[in-house]
Amino acid sequence: MTPKRCVTLLTDYGLEDGFVAACHGVIASICPPARIIDITHLVPPGDVRRGAAIMAQTVPYLPAGVHVAVIDPGVGTRRRAVAIAAGERVFVGPDNGVLWWAAAAPGMRAYELTDQKLWLDPVSATFHGRDIFAPVAAHIAAGHDVATVGAEIDPAGLIRLPEPVHAVRQGVAEGEVVTVDRFGNVQLSITGADLEEIGARWGGTLMVTLGRQSIRMPYGETFGSVRPGELVAYADATGQVSLAVNAGNAAQRLGLPPGAHVRLAVAP
Amino acid sequence: MTPKRCVTLLTDYGLEDGFVAACHGVIASICPPARIIDITHLVPPGDVRRGAAIMAQTVPYLPAGVHVAVIDPGVGTRRRAVAIAAGERVFVGPDNGVLWWAAAAPGMRAYELTDQKLWLDPVSATFHGRDIFAPVAAHIAAGHDVATVGAEIDPAGLIRLPEPVHAVRQGVAEGEVVTVDRFGNVQLSITGADLEEIGARWGGTLMVTLGRQSIRMPYGETFGSVRPGELVAYADATGQVSLAVNAGNAAQRLGLPPGAHVRLAVAP
Amino acid sequence: MTPKRCVTLLTDYGLEDGFVAACHGVIASICPPARIIDITHLVPPGDVRRGAAIMAQTVPYLPAGVHVAVIDPGVGTRRRAVAIAAGERVFVGPDNGVLWWAAAAPGMRAYELTDQKLWLDPVSATFHGRDIFAPVAAHIAAGHDVATVGAEIDPAGLIRLPEPVHAVRQGVAEGEVVTVDRFGNVQLSITGADLEEIGARWGGTLMVTLGRQSIRMPYGETFGSVRPGELVAYADATGQVSLAVNAGNAAQRLGLPPGAHVRLAVAP
Repeated sequence: MTPKRCVTLLTDYGLEDGFVAACHGVIASICPPARIIDITHLVPPGDVRRGAAIMAQTVPYLPAGVHVAVIDPGVGTRRRAVAIAAGERVFVGPDNGVLWWAAAAPGMRAYELTDQKLWLDPVSATFHGRDIFAPVAAHIAAGHDVATVGAEIDPAGLIRLPEPVHAVRQGVAEGEVVTVDRFGNVQLSITGADLEEIGARWGGTLMVTLGRQSIRMPYGETFGSVRPGELVAYADATGQVSLAVNAGNAAQRLGLPPGAHVRLAVAP
Repeated sequence: MTPKRCVTLLTDYGLEDGFVAACHGVIASICPPARIIDITHLVPPGDVRRGAAIMAQTVPYLPAGVHVAVIDPGVGTRRRAVAIAAGERVFVGPDNGVLWWAAAAPGMRAYELTDQKLWLDPVSATFHGRDIFAPVAAHIAAGHDVATVGAEIDPAGLIRLPEPVHAVRQGVAEGEVVTVDRFGNVQLSITGADLEEIGARWGGTLMVTLGRQSIRMPYGETFGSVRPGELVAYADATGQVSLAVNAGNAAQRLGLPPGAHVRLAVAP
Repeated sequence: MTPKRCVTLLTDYGLEDGFVAACHGVIASICPPARIIDITHLVPPGDVRRGAAIMAQTVPYLPAGVHVAVIDPGVGTRRRAVAIAAGERVFVGPDNGVLWWAAAAPGMRAYELTDQKLWLDPVSATFHGRDIFAPVAAHIAAGHDVATVGAEIDPAGLIRLPEPVHAVRQGVAEGEVVTVDRFGNVQLSITGADLEEIGARWGGTLMVTLGRQSIRMPYGETFGSVRPGELVAYADATGQVSLAVNAGNAAQRLGLPPGAHVRLAVAP
């Protein structure tokens, strides 16, 4: 296997402690030429679902490499630690669903991390990012065969998160809020293709139903398609439909947290 | 043209999503040896003026390279995307003024980014940082001639921000708050040289006028020139006059946001 | 001396300005092949004690290199700037205690930074991180002999922080809160070995005394050893005892800031 020189990290460790640096240090010690890309370390503590969504949306733009995700509320308990090989990429992290959306692919193979020779010694009970996931990832980046990090396991047995609500029927696209970004843009589990299916067109108007409230909203190409302060729905950079306020914060305006239920239809 | 191996990024993307990492990934894929330096990604959303100020103050300390700034509230609208070559540096970003203060130099040349072969395909309507600016910067870092990223345009036609208020007359230096840093130090558009011109000397006392309020303040070499809790004016690490409280927060104490008007004179 | 290619940075500069990037730029200009690892830049402004604690806990996991710490409320005053060579590591920063816990080791040698040829020119009064510490560190990383950065000084004369309260006697371990991490886990100056000494065993129960309040708390292997929402004491990834709430925030629950006094005993 060709060494994969790029190691990426996604965690909920925050940036105010030395936790992320310890992971960088471990990787750089084991695989000095590795390029380390931080996806984010500001996933809300323990929010596996959000970590998984960011992984899935970001990985396609990263060089082939070893992709570590450590949102790990179950650290130190019996949850498995795994590596998943899929095409040119290897995913490393806890088996709690955080890797699945990014890693799932035909022909994927999965391994439980059991070869302790690849870990730091001793291993702490609470910092497997530093002691298990980072060193295993670094060894793989340095050319260690992923098939020997531990026992092969059936990918069908890996933990999966519930899929977001998503349905298109009778002219209505139904979904939920997947993430809210820094700008307050509200990303839905509904895609631009779904809107096409229900007959929506750029420049037209959507009826957006949130709980008991229904709001008319233009369907534009970007938030710049409307005047500052106005609401707009658009297909975002990942192909998902997002709700935004031009030069404003749609999540605050609409009171929409991740998981909230949303229905879209072409406005009459 | 010698390849410029350093690519720097300044955005308002925040650090809680995967947006910055996607840009890193695109750059690393196109130009694997590039060193990427993050200037900051915490510019307040859409604050072109603050982004431009940070660029101008930071770039002199960065290796020659390709400097990308994406504070881009007009993304997806008709604003131009540009590259500006100035000496050994190339600046890449939207044509909205964010690059100007850092890039403007005699002999500068400007180009509109029009060669779509250098972009990702497809290009999203809302994430030009990832789809246009990062890949163009990476191609330049990899040795691609900046003169071929698109049509050459007249630098005189590039968008400029209004210059900060700045005048020195009759013993008074007039200016505005340019930025407030993490420590609450308030940086003005007035320079140490301006203060010299009005006769101020280290160890002397300034009269600082903020709106209707006038405050006497020592003019020291550093915030450590006064006792903890005391106000001081000093010429900061960029040569600008700043107001600080030793071991405290001057912006909070004085209620001074960016843009606030300030007058300095030697105290009678 | 073999070049040390890794330079690490810990500061209280925050991430919203260009300060950290200016340090990266200076280092990359002087020593282009250096790998730069950011330990953290979010130490609370001027909090030397917390910076020192993070350095001490993180450095053991970093490659041998040059470790810069700039928590420097006395910048521009008469505090010394120093380099400390200890084994394969060199520590660079102000002489105010921020380096001591990480650097102190038998055979350590210390030098005052006095060779101005290694600094930027001019040197600002307020940004020694960029103008003195970063360039000196980069020169050392590039192979410059640490013994020639300035005059050798007696390590015994370096400033030290008061050691945290820490005592074990008559079945009671006494200590203080060292840090609170992003998860609200409260790290004490009491170690797992101390608890062993007073007869505590995993699976047993501790009596934790905070001021006048005493709380029974299980002593577990990890926060996952108790049910969500429950308190637990455990030996953390650095060997220190920490108090946590599984899937919750112990610092908030217990109202425990850094420095707070804590006593642990085996519960009757």
